[in-house]
Amino acid sequence: MDKVDEDDVVNPWEVATSSATGVDYDKLIKRFGSTKIDDALLQRIEKVTGKPVHHLLRRGKFFSQRDMHIILDLYEQKKPFYLYTGRGPSSDSMHMGHLIPFIFTKWLQDTFDVPLVIQLTDDEKYLWKDLTLEQANHMAFENAKDIIACGFDIEKTFIFSDLDFISNSPAFYRNMCRVQKLVTYNQVKGIFGFGDSDCIGKISFPAIQASPSFSSSFPEIFNGRSDIPCLIPCAIDQDPYFRMTRDVAPRMNCLKPALIHSTFFPALQGAQTKMSASDPTSSIFVTDSDKQIKDKINKYAFSGGGATVEEHKEKGGNCDVDVSFQYLTFFMEDDDRLEEIRKTYTSGELLTGFLKKELVEILQKLVGEHRQRRASLTDDVVKQFMTPRKLKFDYPPPTPPSEKKKKKKQKNSKAV
Amino acid sequence: MDKVDEDDVVNPWEVATSSATGVDYDKLIKRFGSTKIDDALLQRIEKVTGKPVHHLLRRGKFFSQRDMHIILDLYEQKKPFYLYTGRGPSSDSMHMGHLIPFIFTKWLQDTFDVPLVIQLTDDEKYLWKDLTLEQANHMAFENAKDIIACGFDIEKTFIFSDLDFISNSPAFYRNMCRVQKLVTYNQVKGIFGFGDSDCIGKISFPAIQASPSFSSSFPEIFNGRSDIPCLIPCAIDQDPYFRMTRDVAPRMNCLKPALIHSTFFPALQGAQTKMSASDPTSSIFVTDSDKQIKDKINKYAFSGGGATVEEHKEKGGNCDVDVSFQYLTFFMEDDDRLEEIRKTYTSGELLTGFLKKELVEILQKLVGEHRQRRASLTDDVVKQFMTPRKLKFDYPPPTPPSEKKKKKKQKNSKAV
Repeated sequence: MDKVDEDDVVNPWEVATSSATGVDYDKLIKRFGSTKIDDALLQRIEKVTGKPVHHLLRRGKFFSQRDMHIILDLYEQKKPFYLYTGRGPSSDSMHMGHLIPFIFTKWLQDTFDVPLVIQLTDDEKYLWKDLTLEQANHMAFENAKDIIACGFDIEKTFIFSDLDFISNSPAFYRNMCRVQKLVTYNQVKGIFGFGDSDCIGKISFPAIQASPSFSSSFPEIFNGRSDIPCLIPCAIDQDPYFRMTRDVAPRMNCLKPALIHSTFFPALQGAQTKMSASDPTSSIFVTDSDKQIKDKINKYAFSGGGATVEEHKEKGGNCDVDVSFQYLTFFMEDDDRLEEIRKTYTSGELLTGFLKKELVEILQKLVGEHRQRRASLTDDVVKQFMTPRKLKFDYPPPTPPSEKKKKKKQKNSKAV
Repeated sequence: MDKVDEDDVVNPWEVATSSATGVDYDKLIKRFGSTKIDDALLQRIEKVTGKPVHHLLRRGKFFSQRDMHIILDLYEQKKPFYLYTGRGPSSDSMHMGHLIPFIFTKWLQDTFDVPLVIQLTDDEKYLWKDLTLEQANHMAFENAKDIIACGFDIEKTFIFSDLDFISNSPAFYRNMCRVQKLVTYNQVKGIFGFGDSDCIGKISFPAIQASPSFSSSFPEIFNGRSDIPCLIPCAIDQDPYFRMTRDVAPRMNCLKPALIHSTFFPALQGAQTKMSASDPTSSIFVTDSDKQIKDKINKYAFSGGGATVEEHKEKGGNCDVDVSFQYLTFFMEDDDRLEEIRKTYTSGELLTGFLKKELVEILQKLVGEHRQRRASLTDDVVKQFMTPRKLKFDYPPPTPPSEKKKKKKQKNSKAV
């Protein structure tokens, strides 16, 4: 293991790096054994969908994948698949980093016109944090509002809290049991770094995050079908769960989920520091007012510019470590404008203050629209999103085993 | 640890001893830290219930307990409690040893007039055995029939399969999560001997067997009350689960379950050999015909008698190792008759053949009646037993926390 690998810690509970430019993602791809998203894949996505790829894909924010070509094959053949993503509801309000996978997932849903299941792991947060079940469950409900406010289609989207759904879903629970039988303590110790003093809830939790990868976990949506493949958009730190899932899937007679991984969204203070929902200064929250957004960006966003105007004009700004610029790469849709900013900031022509002003405007608009959509949401609509139900997609029922046998028999008797 | 302790292996998955008289139960009480059932307790049970204790209690088949005096206090004060027992459904048909806890539990239910919950751990059997979920679940349903045929009152009894109930019971699932948060891998390793190569399902399973100990797991029965105490009749090998449960209960703001433990029922071949549901010659099954019962007892029941009639008449029989005599101590209700048999067999007057004949008659009657009751059971009745529902007992609803506060406030304002 080389130095960089040793320095970057990436697992579902910790992401840490000592590099100001953030985690070394190429090294991570090697370590996790996934595949880098290359230009050929982007071109194929544009070809099969007939539209330009999302700027988060174009700009390498989603940078790694597993089996994306299989998903594109299915789409070309007009065969069904579905999307699965999730969130651990660790606070009542979400920050911009939390929104990234959902913004991208919405694009995937709009583009491919497929069902989406969103898992809120309130049980995980209960197990890992100093929270009661009721607190974790409440956060799941509040977070569901923020997720819905990203614009998901109620006819294509099912959102569930583990605590509520598992205890009302025999099919999901049985898949959990199946995974729990196939994965050993040694394996979760190796994959997730669990230790002997961890509680047994943590140790068996990975089965819960694995189960939504199988369409048989959602008979209401998939009409009892177990053969609908799944694509999971998520941040790369969640990949360990799905490496495990892909390992057990064939032994369960299930399909391996495909994946598309994002990089991490940096904290305002820079890529080495941790963005935390419990530290309001570490990010922009969807609940922040216009003034808070402006103040936070101006005060906390780590600058790659010169210490003085003179120094900046002389030496230029460093876009690779400048958090405001990094945020623009996530949220500014206009490629030409972004490139112009990159050039003029790097040359020193554009001052940090102007860069920040541009970002503040974009974030105020984004957060403002989100705030409006969230405010217009009623509890009833949230409950509807969270009710296990048929979505707008139809699936022919699975062939019962007896039918399969009968067909085979008829075939055989004809043969005789 | 002394020699005997080393030789006797007693845990939920293995009971083994090298002694022909079976496990050393006094040593086991010391090792497990439970309390021996003494004459004073038996007398108190007779006093508070106003009826003679069951012969399985009188004869020391139920020999150990935890907190039985608390349960008797409650009964004296006309305060509620409930019974919880269970079974791991490892085969379609049950043998006589499986019936012992249920025969005794029925007596407890009749005597104390309390609700009873019976857990069928089909999930456990799925995890531990080479079974599919469907097979384990089917066995649970079949075993429920044999349990109901013991004569339980449908108005006082709820039977559930884990696989069916957990995924339909938010309250139960939340208690499972609570236990899973409080118990570490180290603890289950110490208590149950789990190892690193065990699957994560096994490792978290103890939380599932713990949860029925809390009345809050059954809101349908207890009207949402979390303060109804529980008494668990079970074989002593199940005690590790409930030591763990009693350890976590106070930290969950729950009551510790009380326990009453039975000895093990010997295999036909003797107390050193293992009785196995998969070996039809090792016990009498509730599905055995009269002829099978007779043939098995005559052929396989280990005899403590002499090798020849002459030797038997001269040296007498050994009741301590004679399996037919041991079976009589479980199933012959008449104390005087049993004592007469003990005396005449020990003296050599009564021959093995006559002893066996007596046992065969008793078992044929018992199994015959069981067979009849089972045959008359419809699937609908079984399903009714297995439906989460209110039983014939009424509980006032729990005081909501806000009411408690209000009352306290009123009290306070009066004080001021």
